Amino acid sequence: MFDPVEKLKEFIRHPSVSADPSFKDGMVGARDFVAGLLTSIGFNVEVIHTKLHPVILAERHGKPEWPHVIIYGHYDVQPADPLNLWMSAAFEPEIRGNRLYGRGSADNKGPLMTHISAVARLLERRPDLPLNITFMIEGEEEMGSPSFPLFLEQYQHRLRKADFVFLSDTGIPREDQIVITCGLRGLVLFDVVVTGSKSDLHSGLHGGVLRNPIQALAELCATLHTPDGRVNVPGFYDDVLEVEQWERDELAKLGQSEEQYREFLGIPAFYTTKGYTPFEATRYLPTLEFNGIGGGYQGEGTKTVIPSKAFAKISCRLVANQNTTKIRELLYSTVRERMPKDVTFEIVDQHEGTAYVVVPPGRSNTPKDQSPVLAKAFRAADTAIGEVFGKPPLYLREGGSVPIIADIKRVLGLDSVLMGLFLPEDNLHAPNESFHLGVMKKGMRASEKILEALATR
Amino acid sequence: MFDPVEKLKEFIRHPSVSADPSFKDGMVGARDFVAGLLTSIGFNVEVIHTKLHPVILAERHGKPEWPHVIIYGHYDVQPADPLNLWMSAAFEPEIRGNRLYGRGSADNKGPLMTHISAVARLLERRPDLPLNITFMIEGEEEMGSPSFPLFLEQYQHRLRKADFVFLSDTGIPREDQIVITCGLRGLVLFDVVVTGSKSDLHSGLHGGVLRNPIQALAELCATLHTPDGRVNVPGFYDDVLEVEQWERDELAKLGQSEEQYREFLGIPAFYTTKGYTPFEATRYLPTLEFNGIGGGYQGEGTKTVIPSKAFAKISCRLVANQNTTKIRELLYSTVRERMPKDVTFEIVDQHEGTAYVVVPPGRSNTPKDQSPVLAKAFRAADTAIGEVFGKPPLYLREGGSVPIIADIKRVLGLDSVLMGLFLPEDNLHAPNESFHLGVMKKGMRASEKILEALATR
Repeated sequence: MFDPVEKLKEFIRHPSVSADPSFKDGMVGARDFVAGLLTSIGFNVEVIHTKLHPVILAERHGKPEWPHVIIYGHYDVQPADPLNLWMSAAFEPEIRGNRLYGRGSADNKGPLMTHISAVARLLERRPDLPLNITFMIEGEEEMGSPSFPLFLEQYQHRLRKADFVFLSDTGIPREDQIVITCGLRGLVLFDVVVTGSKSDLHSGLHGGVLRNPIQALAELCATLHTPDGRVNVPGFYDDVLEVEQWERDELAKLGQSEEQYREFLGIPAFYTTKGYTPFEATRYLPTLEFNGIGGGYQGEGTKTVIPSKAFAKISCRLVANQNTTKIRELLYSTVRERMPKDVTFEIVDQHEGTAYVVVPPGRSNTPKDQSPVLAKAFRAADTAIGEVFGKPPLYLREGGSVPIIADIKRVLGLDSVLMGLFLPEDNLHAPNESFHLGVMKKGMRASEKILEALATR
Repeated sequence: MFDPVEKLKEFIRHPSVSADPSFKDGMVGARDFVAGLLTSIGFNVEVIHTKLHPVILAERHGKPEWPHVIIYGHYDVQPADPLNLWMSAAFEPEIRGNRLYGRGSADNKGPLMTHISAVARLLERRPDLPLNITFMIEGEEEMGSPSFPLFLEQYQHRLRKADFVFLSDTGIPREDQIVITCGLRGLVLFDVVVTGSKSDLHSGLHGGVLRNPIQALAELCATLHTPDGRVNVPGFYDDVLEVEQWERDELAKLGQSEEQYREFLGIPAFYTTKGYTPFEATRYLPTLEFNGIGGGYQGEGTKTVIPSKAFAKISCRLVANQNTTKIRELLYSTVRERMPKDVTFEIVDQHEGTAYVVVPPGRSNTPKDQSPVLAKAFRAADTAIGEVFGKPPLYLREGGSVPIIADIKRVLGLDSVLMGLFLPEDNLHAPNESFHLGVMKKGMRASEKILEALATR
């Protein structure tokens, strides 16, 4: 059995930024690394080519009547910029305290390595384990998984035979409190590009006769929220469902402190929709955020220019029952209506993903036709996590998005068991991302127990 | 006598971007080039060191009772980015049609070379000309001339002896219509930097609980103009004076077409303060412009981040009688009042310059104590320009800023004769800057005639 932490460091050293073509070598390196590792522990590995970054499909199949779990993960990572804010190099993993630092350590290389290690140990101990295992590891998750739905369509004849999907790409509040995520927000992303004059202008010679595209963009963006923190787009909330009572109760068990959360964020005050705590707002409500804005001179000092263009990168998080196409149309028509008429503009589609909800066994709203193997997996997770981490998991919706979970449900008909492993302090998508090695170690034991329990009659 | 166009090309090849320390070699190269050229035509050249980029002071002095003209220019240029929009390399001068393309060709290397060439020709023809000439050529104009006021203070004992300053760093509407600029707008520049959370956040995990700094910045910026194009800062217009009737009449002679101007800018519609034509608005009214904005992810594709910081670079153009300190205070207190309280922010001072007005001889509001040599210069310019360009100059205020003109007035007590030479199509401060070689040639003849006339009893 290999050393999981050393393997994780090796994995992180491949700078697999899927969104940036200049990181091609890192993508190939990370993929070859995972494929080699799975081969070494006895899997039959296929690299399935897509339009961009291939999917790794690795199978360890015995008899068709055995339970069948698909373990999902992704080998790509977010861009690491701004690089100057990292305390150690983003792609040179470094252990400080009980944490391993590096881009992708928590999202998703660490959690994925946790499951690969658990499987390696389990199969070493029980080579004849009656469990079909498929690893399905993609390379475009951080770009919104553009090729993944087509991959699912093309391989559905093999993948539909599975009973459920098992993965760790969601969060936990504390290192002793595992959360099984039962809902994920959806996403709709787009850019707005505003053009004023046909080229940059001298702000003295021409200042005072035209609307600066930065001004037009600011005036648009300023209309998109109400003072009490709601998204100010007509119809945006029409399909949002009220949350179930058991979910509110489960969330209350978290016992998180708003003041500590505020200090963690480092903000003077929250800006949250009235009637919702910050912890509820991130789970049960949709959002509209500005992920980036740019235009004109951004260097040191000054340049007295009226820029020709300015842009904003906008994303909405959606909740269960909101339709991405309908929301996109509401957003676009709002932008069209509100944009000042003395500039021109373009709306650029970016990716999207549907929100997802699954209900564990035994709840008031558990579907009657829930798969027995899925129900068994939830119960096995409840037990194993209780044993390893000292307390049972909480079943909560999550603010993040893993759009492929909804795609898997739609194309394969499979639900997912999302065992969270990363902490708020892990700095996902931000400088100084890290993964807690204690959580990794316990996660490996829990994963091993869950998988073993599935194979037990 | 040297070839003025070849010398100008040589001048442009030195990439003298004063604001960017990485262009140090270009600054030194441009300075050495000008110093060498002036030495070669008989000037006594001193390089006066300042905190940043030296001033070139070159003298050709005879008897103290001779008239004395200071010719001003600057050897530094604006940054050339975005480089990808240039049709030929920014610092590789190229002639296409009757234009010489290259950064600095019009601002200010071409106009400066026009006067150096005129002086060279005049002194070749009349080596004993009874005229004291001082060239005063700085290297920080595009940064707002931070060292220039101190230079003026330190050398005022020599410079105050002059009668007036002659320069070309302003514009003309057409190649046959020279404008002598009688007013320049002032400037106040500052940055606003907004901070939300202490580091970048995942927009899924944390979206919905805090005000995004881009949102806060957009909400602030959107309040700074009224729908009819005025600056929405209380007190901003309090000291703006009504323009004189002779100025309105003079401007009307320009006969410019609003429709052609709109097409030149490439905008769907003007956005101009009510009651002012676009041509009046740029000359008689102050502005507030966004020169740049930035924050979050600006690359290809998407990054689902809530950025920690966002910034805007803001500049105001001021008109005569507005006080920079008072305007700065009004702006800052407006930003402080209107910024949402759930973010933190910082205001960063940038440079500033006072507006300037001079009235030519014979107008209703010409000062009674106007210097006789200045009056003679205005009359000589009227005649020489009429002869060379086929029609007399117009006397107009200009929208741009040359803050040192107000500094020269304050420290040395000298007025300036600003003979415009660049055209709207010259693309100052923008990609594909160029200078019209026909204007250059005529400008040389006019400058030569004006200087010669000054030396005539």
